[in-house]
Amino acid sequence: MNKNRLEAFSDGIFAVAITLLVLDVRIPAGVDYKDLNDALLLLLPKILSYLLSFLVIGVYWAYHHFSLTRIKKIDGTLLFLNLLTLLLVTFMPFPTILIGEYPFTTTPLVIYGLCLLASNCIGFLWVLHLHQNPQYLKDHYRNEFLKMKTPLYIAVNAPYVVAIALAFFAPKMSYAIYIVVLLGLGVNLWKQMNRAAKIDPSGAPD
Amino acid sequence: MNKNRLEAFSDGIFAVAITLLVLDVRIPAGVDYKDLNDALLLLLPKILSYLLSFLVIGVYWAYHHFSLTRIKKIDGTLLFLNLLTLLLVTFMPFPTILIGEYPFTTTPLVIYGLCLLASNCIGFLWVLHLHQNPQYLKDHYRNEFLKMKTPLYIAVNAPYVVAIALAFFAPKMSYAIYIVVLLGLGVNLWKQMNRAAKIDPSGAPD
Amino acid sequence: MNKNRLEAFSDGIFAVAITLLVLDVRIPAGVDYKDLNDALLLLLPKILSYLLSFLVIGVYWAYHHFSLTRIKKIDGTLLFLNLLTLLLVTFMPFPTILIGEYPFTTTPLVIYGLCLLASNCIGFLWVLHLHQNPQYLKDHYRNEFLKMKTPLYIAVNAPYVVAIALAFFAPKMSYAIYIVVLLGLGVNLWKQMNRAAKIDPSGAPD
Amino acid sequence: MNKNRLEAFSDGIFAVAITLLVLDVRIPAGVDYKDLNDALLLLLPKILSYLLSFLVIGVYWAYHHFSLTRIKKIDGTLLFLNLLTLLLVTFMPFPTILIGEYPFTTTPLVIYGLCLLASNCIGFLWVLHLHQNPQYLKDHYRNEFLKMKTPLYIAVNAPYVVAIALAFFAPKMSYAIYIVVLLGLGVNLWKQMNRAAKIDPSGAPD
Repeated sequence: MNKNRLEAFSDGIFAVAITLLVLDVRIPAGVDYKDLNDALLLLLPKILSYLLSFLVIGVYWAYHHFSLTRIKKIDGTLLFLNLLTLLLVTFMPFPTILIGEYPFTTTPLVIYGLCLLASNCIGFLWVLHLHQNPQYLKDHYRNEFLKMKTPLYIAVNAPYVVAIALAFFAPKMSYAIYIVVLLGLGVNLWKQMNRAAKIDPSGAPD
Repeated sequence: MNKNRLEAFSDGIFAVAITLLVLDVRIPAGVDYKDLNDALLLLLPKILSYLLSFLVIGVYWAYHHFSLTRIKKIDGTLLFLNLLTLLLVTFMPFPTILIGEYPFTTTPLVIYGLCLLASNCIGFLWVLHLHQNPQYLKDHYRNEFLKMKTPLYIAVNAPYVVAIALAFFAPKMSYAIYIVVLLGLGVNLWKQMNRAAKIDPSGAPD
Repeated sequence: MNKNRLEAFSDGIFAVAITLLVLDVRIPAGVDYKDLNDALLLLLPKILSYLLSFLVIGVYWAYHHFSLTRIKKIDGTLLFLNLLTLLLVTFMPFPTILIGEYPFTTTPLVIYGLCLLASNCIGFLWVLHLHQNPQYLKDHYRNEFLKMKTPLYIAVNAPYVVAIALAFFAPKMSYAIYIVVLLGLGVNLWKQMNRAAKIDPSGAPD
Repeated sequence: MNKNRLEAFSDGIFAVAITLLVLDVRIPAGVDYKDLNDALLLLLPKILSYLLSFLVIGVYWAYHHFSLTRIKKIDGTLLFLNLLTLLLVTFMPFPTILIGEYPFTTTPLVIYGLCLLASNCIGFLWVLHLHQNPQYLKDHYRNEFLKMKTPLYIAVNAPYVVAIALAFFAPKMSYAIYIVVLLGLGVNLWKQMNRAAKIDPSGAPD
């Protein structure tokens, strides 16, 4: 399988999913102009969930990008793990709408957390498969990759599980954890990329 | 015609179609939070049809990818067969919504099956045209291609026809056949790609 | 301007526009299963307009592809003519919905025709600009291009104007003309590409 | 980070966002054919806001293209500034719908202006970051870039601020300023590209 086309297909799906999120941020039909400000205030939970899911898909896109960069060959298992990731990405608008429509309630936050957890687990299977088949990794990534302890997945899965549990007792706390974890993933990405750019600013292909 | 742009256009369409599927998985407006769990249960048939069609488009994308990989030149007939394939891909959200909205009923399952059958027939015409014009195939695929007996199309069309017939008597059986055939196509793809990756893990362009 | 990114952006827009067309082909909410067959029959005009617009965007994509293939440099005028083309492509879902919702009536058919006419006129301005600035054409296309009499635009604009006029007296005839012209453009494309592929089946870049 | 994939992802988002704009240009369900002309007249504000936002996204895409062209390496800050730009691009359908639904009223015009202002400020941060990290610029752009006084951002931000203030007193004037500024940005782009194409019509990569 041609890796470039898999990337193009995946990028297309990430791009469509992230753009569809806004379709639910809208004033109900028939609101008078004098009630518009109130209606906009009622939209705030939807705008918050829109921003959170934009961050989710944006950050996951970047991590997805780095996962594929390291690979030189796609086998059947990697194709299907990639399809499962894309399934979760295209599914994101659904839990996003739920937590926007029913803000700070248990069920939507549980579903949201399960989606994040699931995509994390698929990422873990991806890493596991490459540990068993390091021949699919580009040569200069292989040693570095095999030495990694992948503590990021544990560091991220733990708060997701906690947030899912908290959704039953303290939904706002649960929501806050999702935001903090995703901002953390964003900051981690930002630092990693700044470090890489400082080491090699020449723009050589990865 | 530049094959890369045909691939980009096709990939874009596959990506949009597969992402639009989720737009119909949603809670009706105005459901109270206390009725949310019931509403989510009522969504299960839609989620099932969403998953099935995601599998259809994902697997067809991969097969489409391999069809184009083998080709070095696009003539008018291949362009229009490709457009017909894309027509069916973009049409998929319609029967998907039908089988989600009217679960386990005859008409939606017949329409769904006819779409699958039609896209299979177009794939068959594609193979036929290349048998008559092997000069459009890349050199190292030509011999292998001409020796193929293409039994996959018969193996797949037969159960589709059976499922369409069964939709009149036993809709659940019909639905189950679609799922089994598509899982079968997925497993076949997975095996083929694992075999290819084992023979040549170097990531040489196909 | 990097031509590849202009192509990628344009391809993306064509792909999204052609896939969005299906969103209006749907059964109204709340139709009982026993009324489904009737509701499907009522959908036929929408399915027809969907098929017609799919053909429009598909064929225009291919012509757009060939227009860009011949060019080596994008100046400001070509960028804005391209944006105008994309404006009409993204607008297509609107008149498509109109002729599907109000089948065989004057206003929708006039709007549909004006869109086709407008995109044809933009194509004519594109050709005109390249006649005055042949330095933007790839060298091996230049002579051939400057000798062209571009009779296709007249051959196509004439029936569009007739169809718009007929929409006031004989809407079905008007609709039929759109279908015939677009099938004609498709057949012309098919023949051209078959001829080109026969002359050079080697897949050399255009 | 591979710049090509960032471009592909960005192009996809621009393409989807610009195509989704039309989804709100539609006749309400249930309008009789005899009332269609009146309903079309009522659509004019939505068509105007559609055209304006199409121009916004189209012109911003071109400027975005030139911003990325000059860069050879993406660090974390550039990635997140790019994500913020894309956030605003995907958000555009929301204020577009607002100014189409509530034409010539204060709140929608303020929100619209704030979005334009915000995306301008992100562009300013982008330029600032590159001034501090000129090593990420392609060598032949560096000197030219560092000499730029970037007066365009001030020239554009000033009327945006005026338009936002005017939205409270004279909404039509406010709307007119957005149109004039964006047409101005378009003309500026058109001139720049014509000049660049005249200097080097050879189509050498930028």
